[in-house]
Amino acid sequence: MDTGGAPRVGIVGGGQLARMSAAPAAALGIGLRVLAAAPDESAAQVIRDVSIGRHDDLAALLRFADGCDVVTFDHEHVPPIHLEQLESRGIAVRPGPSALFHAQDKIHMRQALTDIGVPCPRWRVVTAPGEVADFADEAGWPVVLKTSRGGYDGRGVWVVESVQQAVDVLAVPLAPGAQWLAEERIDFVQELSAQVARSPHGQAVAYPVVRTLQADGICSEVIAPAPGLASARAVAAQEIALRIARDLNVTGMLAVEMFDDGYDLFVNELAMRPHNSGHWSIEGARTSQFENHLRAVLDLPLGAPTAVAPYAVMVNILGGDVGDLYSAYRHVLARDPGLKVHLYGKAVRPGRKVGHVTVLGDDVEGLLARGRHAADYFAGVIDE
Amino acid sequence: MDTGGAPRVGIVGGGQLARMSAAPAAALGIGLRVLAAAPDESAAQVIRDVSIGRHDDLAALLRFADGCDVVTFDHEHVPPIHLEQLESRGIAVRPGPSALFHAQDKIHMRQALTDIGVPCPRWRVVTAPGEVADFADEAGWPVVLKTSRGGYDGRGVWVVESVQQAVDVLAVPLAPGAQWLAEERIDFVQELSAQVARSPHGQAVAYPVVRTLQADGICSEVIAPAPGLASARAVAAQEIALRIARDLNVTGMLAVEMFDDGYDLFVNELAMRPHNSGHWSIEGARTSQFENHLRAVLDLPLGAPTAVAPYAVMVNILGGDVGDLYSAYRHVLARDPGLKVHLYGKAVRPGRKVGHVTVLGDDVEGLLARGRHAADYFAGVIDE
Repeated sequence: MDTGGAPRVGIVGGGQLARMSAAPAAALGIGLRVLAAAPDESAAQVIRDVSIGRHDDLAALLRFADGCDVVTFDHEHVPPIHLEQLESRGIAVRPGPSALFHAQDKIHMRQALTDIGVPCPRWRVVTAPGEVADFADEAGWPVVLKTSRGGYDGRGVWVVESVQQAVDVLAVPLAPGAQWLAEERIDFVQELSAQVARSPHGQAVAYPVVRTLQADGICSEVIAPAPGLASARAVAAQEIALRIARDLNVTGMLAVEMFDDGYDLFVNELAMRPHNSGHWSIEGARTSQFENHLRAVLDLPLGAPTAVAPYAVMVNILGGDVGDLYSAYRHVLARDPGLKVHLYGKAVRPGRKVGHVTVLGDDVEGLLARGRHAADYFAGVIDE
Repeated sequence: MDTGGAPRVGIVGGGQLARMSAAPAAALGIGLRVLAAAPDESAAQVIRDVSIGRHDDLAALLRFADGCDVVTFDHEHVPPIHLEQLESRGIAVRPGPSALFHAQDKIHMRQALTDIGVPCPRWRVVTAPGEVADFADEAGWPVVLKTSRGGYDGRGVWVVESVQQAVDVLAVPLAPGAQWLAEERIDFVQELSAQVARSPHGQAVAYPVVRTLQADGICSEVIAPAPGLASARAVAAQEIALRIARDLNVTGMLAVEMFDDGYDLFVNELAMRPHNSGHWSIEGARTSQFENHLRAVLDLPLGAPTAVAPYAVMVNILGGDVGDLYSAYRHVLARDPGLKVHLYGKAVRPGRKVGHVTVLGDDVEGLLARGRHAADYFAGVIDE
């Protein structure tokens, strides 16, 4: 497919993040190719230029990257050695392998953040239950145990209250290259996410800091901006995210998930791609996270991250017992003409993220009620 | 491509209107197929499910429509007899052939609007210069001469000042089935466009009435809402559009272009599809014209057409001497981080609509200056 002089961006992974990148790519007239494992994956349904293959198959990655001006990601799971292979063949990979490794390995991330002075929960690499007990003597119980690699959406994370529980967790087999990480559990009053976009030439923009609500380790709701967050604290969160982006040489979108204990901010996780905590920006910001990710990896000037309404509320649609999401439309769209619905074209499985809804306005409680109603109706939790 | 229980909408025509329908279709999880004349047409570049064929080839239309739940349009050029063939085979065509014929034949449109009492410029079917002179005796010179079929973007329209000029125009060969239409030229103070969406079950919503600015018969700028338009007059324009949609049984988007002479409104043209005068709604309204067109033709509840900013200004990017539009990005995006750019993936030819820009805010003059600057820079008219 000829792009008429415009560059082509390749996204590794065919999930909903790649899918939602299609709209700004088409608007900007930028070529978009996706590497999907199957032709019916979420993004592959709506993008013309699909390369079929696995993200951990170097030959598939090279075929996909041939003809792309820059390669970026829908997820963090491409093996670093493959990314280095792409780079060594002159393919622009953004974020680059050394930056992305911080989002692939939590121990590497903790060490780097500690080195640059970013506040984190206390942490330690552990190999045996006795070391967990030693760590708890300092940081207190409960202790959070994480595998350094391969976890997402709450997988690979356990909260243990005792040495005996740590024994059980440490018996779980580790993925190749993974280690155990013990972390202090922060007694937080809220969880925040600070997103920034950064381009190779160093321009960066910071989105409004949002409040995220998790259920079972999965992001379920986002309020943008975080209600009641003091301006100084919001700026502090943005500064942390901008510092991480600069010092770790991140290109593209960076999401920094943080705990707020009412006094201080502690970095929890990093994601170097568009992130669930930024879906509100499609309708709620002048430039969405998906557009700014494309602009950033292409080293184009970034768009304004400004909010366009006092509040945006996003609620994830989790799969329930109803396999046919479309049948909910007649009810939810008639009930709420201002509701914005995004379905991902994914087969419904209980608890799986299959879409989200966004509402904009000035009454947070009212927006939450609208968003939750729609998400619950799609999930079949309510029927009116 | 399986749509997971969602319906599939087929759009006849691979232009920018179909292209801009891809984003809301993906968001709503609705299947989208386009009938394009070539695989590199504007919409075909960004839609997965492309059927190649001509809109006036019945066999191609039938192949394309097979598997679509509803067929709609990017343009008005499908022969009515073909549309009736589709309907007779049980394919839902929206708008239906009898409604769409009003947008295909200007004499049919003028007669229907006159019959339902909608104000139009004075008009008469003419076959010879003497009849133009008779019409001018009543309506005055100049007279607007139009071919009843096949014109768009200023083509098929002439303004004549005398019988001798009418002789020259009437010597132009007519397309099959076309006739000559003489119309009074309205001495307007502004041109307006009123857009509505209407669904088969009769729900309708009206967008804010916009002011359109034309250059050489081509829409060049849109201001939403029309600045200074009295509320009563805006409501009158919306009522005219709603009445036309209802009485002509239009489904989908309807654009009613009007002349405002400072006292009265006169309907100029109808378009039964998303329209250039509604591109501002992508960022400027809660529900874009492209989303509401899909919702309407699927008989889903319609979305709120509410504006999300005091003003939106859209400026078309017309092709200039610069073939590579992408090279303008570094300048225009850096200069204006709030600018929204839509390029259509079309080869640049002088005067051709190849994209548009939209800006939102409260200062109309400032918005116009920003939009014009960007469009001029893309066109190569200015270089700083």
